[in-house]
Amino acid sequence: MNIVLTGDRPTGKLHIGHYVGSLKKRVSIQGKYDKSFIMIADTQALSDNALNPEKVRDSVIEVMLDYLSVGLKPELNTFFIQSLVPELAELTMYYMNFVNLGRLSRNPTVKAEMKQKGYGDQIPVGFLCYPISQAADITAFKANLIPVGDDQLPMIEQTNEIVRRINNHFNKNILVECKPLLSNVKRLPGIDGKAKMSKSLNNAIYLSDNRECISRKVMSMYTDPNHIRIEDPGNIEGNVVFKYLDAFDPNKDEVEKLKKHYEKGGLGDVTIKKRLIEVLDQELNPIRLRRQQLEENKDELLIMLKEGSEYARTIASDTLAELKKVFYLNY
Amino acid sequence: MNIVLTGDRPTGKLHIGHYVGSLKKRVSIQGKYDKSFIMIADTQALSDNALNPEKVRDSVIEVMLDYLSVGLKPELNTFFIQSLVPELAELTMYYMNFVNLGRLSRNPTVKAEMKQKGYGDQIPVGFLCYPISQAADITAFKANLIPVGDDQLPMIEQTNEIVRRINNHFNKNILVECKPLLSNVKRLPGIDGKAKMSKSLNNAIYLSDNRECISRKVMSMYTDPNHIRIEDPGNIEGNVVFKYLDAFDPNKDEVEKLKKHYEKGGLGDVTIKKRLIEVLDQELNPIRLRRQQLEENKDELLIMLKEGSEYARTIASDTLAELKKVFYLNY
Repeated sequence: MNIVLTGDRPTGKLHIGHYVGSLKKRVSIQGKYDKSFIMIADTQALSDNALNPEKVRDSVIEVMLDYLSVGLKPELNTFFIQSLVPELAELTMYYMNFVNLGRLSRNPTVKAEMKQKGYGDQIPVGFLCYPISQAADITAFKANLIPVGDDQLPMIEQTNEIVRRINNHFNKNILVECKPLLSNVKRLPGIDGKAKMSKSLNNAIYLSDNRECISRKVMSMYTDPNHIRIEDPGNIEGNVVFKYLDAFDPNKDEVEKLKKHYEKGGLGDVTIKKRLIEVLDQELNPIRLRRQQLEENKDELLIMLKEGSEYARTIASDTLAELKKVFYLNY
Repeated sequence: MNIVLTGDRPTGKLHIGHYVGSLKKRVSIQGKYDKSFIMIADTQALSDNALNPEKVRDSVIEVMLDYLSVGLKPELNTFFIQSLVPELAELTMYYMNFVNLGRLSRNPTVKAEMKQKGYGDQIPVGFLCYPISQAADITAFKANLIPVGDDQLPMIEQTNEIVRRINNHFNKNILVECKPLLSNVKRLPGIDGKAKMSKSLNNAIYLSDNRECISRKVMSMYTDPNHIRIEDPGNIEGNVVFKYLDAFDPNKDEVEKLKKHYEKGGLGDVTIKKRLIEVLDQELNPIRLRRQQLEENKDELLIMLKEGSEYARTIASDTLAELKKVFYLNY
């Protein structure tokens, strides 16, 4: 049995970084495995947005719109909302007894995010514990294949540690170890050239951006600050326009030619930016059109998510019941 | 509305330290307030007993037997099992976002217990978080009166911090602050003279101990190591027999006379120990008899606990629903 679980924190609309890094992969593998669960992780999103829950709530539907717009299909995936599966909270509580503070604090992904957010020991305990919550999400559905980037590998390792610790101690294969489905796509930088595209850095192009908005963002894109006159030789390294062309332009040969021309001199930023606008618009236009259609029936999306959550609950309940049996909690 | 919540971790039978420090108080106040909840905290017990859940399970019924034996009445209290109210796990997860790691690590009660158990950063995350879990237990039932010893005051403070943080931010009095119902009883030392009576230190007298067992434990009790011959002057300070007589002997005048006699010399340890055996047996005999009767119908106790838990769920669900509304999780 091959079961896939993926998901996103609903803290805003999804951007083309999500699309290139994760959503395209999910679309390409859908239907290839026995089951696929896609979780909108509202509870996890609250772990560092506790004082701004309205943003999280609004984003739940936006993320669902993005999912369906890029071509993820309800008949091939179970979409659900994390908080509507309370068994995940119970599992998290039990798993918290199998992980110690030192191990959690040394998790490289948590450490990097703590540093990025400048938390120090002011880190909300819920945020610190999100790897445990993720372990609950994965194991509840006995998911064994997790599409991730390599920055998420410590999460897989933490999950498997919990799985092994419980299975070994209770001498029973209740939980299932998982492995990463690594995507070999490089992370897309923000339009300002920063390594990470994110809402908070205000450097993202969203799947729902219209053509005018895309144009504006591409025209402001970071290229080569020393490439001042067209005839100057330009630098490809760190040049966001070329990074995006690499990711989106279907004509790889033409992109290589353009790179050479740019490096030699004589190719202006405006020319390559205009090409990128066309390329992006071609990729995003069908997604945008589907999104517009779907937006007319937001209520239906919520119904779909609730039904998915009900189904997800039945699976998570079964796993919880198995665990409660070995934990002697089956009163 | 005055609502009382108390409870115990089921990690063994209850001992006379629990009786003097807490159970007698609970019996004396039962029926005096609008509602009273008594929780058997199996989930919390697992936070440092994850690898030994069978002990926790067995202790659930033992603790319930102890409760009813000392005179806590089902018609005046709702008895329930923590893990049978999964809303408490959900509340804990949400509260974890409102408490930071620094605050939690500085909790004096947690610090003391961490030191006692020698955890360091090997502390299970579930154990570290138990003050948050207690805040969930208290607030779920909108309990405003918590019978505690003064070592538990930091827990009350942590709970009220969460209450204020949520109520203030969402500008609505959803949660209720609580205050301690302090008992002015001094903690009963173990029979070996150590400050804490506990199962793990093997220095406890249990409510369920029979007369022979009590005699043996009292006869081995720590008195004054320098009081070798009967005619020697003896020391009252740190003398466990006199501490217990202070706690249990109804004849205070006689105890004062015995103390003076002991200090002067001429009163043997065996004499005061025999008195203590009588005094303890008189107090514990009716409790033991009730326990024997109740033990014949353990199944009924479990039914009672399940019914109590069902009722507790209805209350906890209401509180959770109110919170989910302001957290925008009312899909």
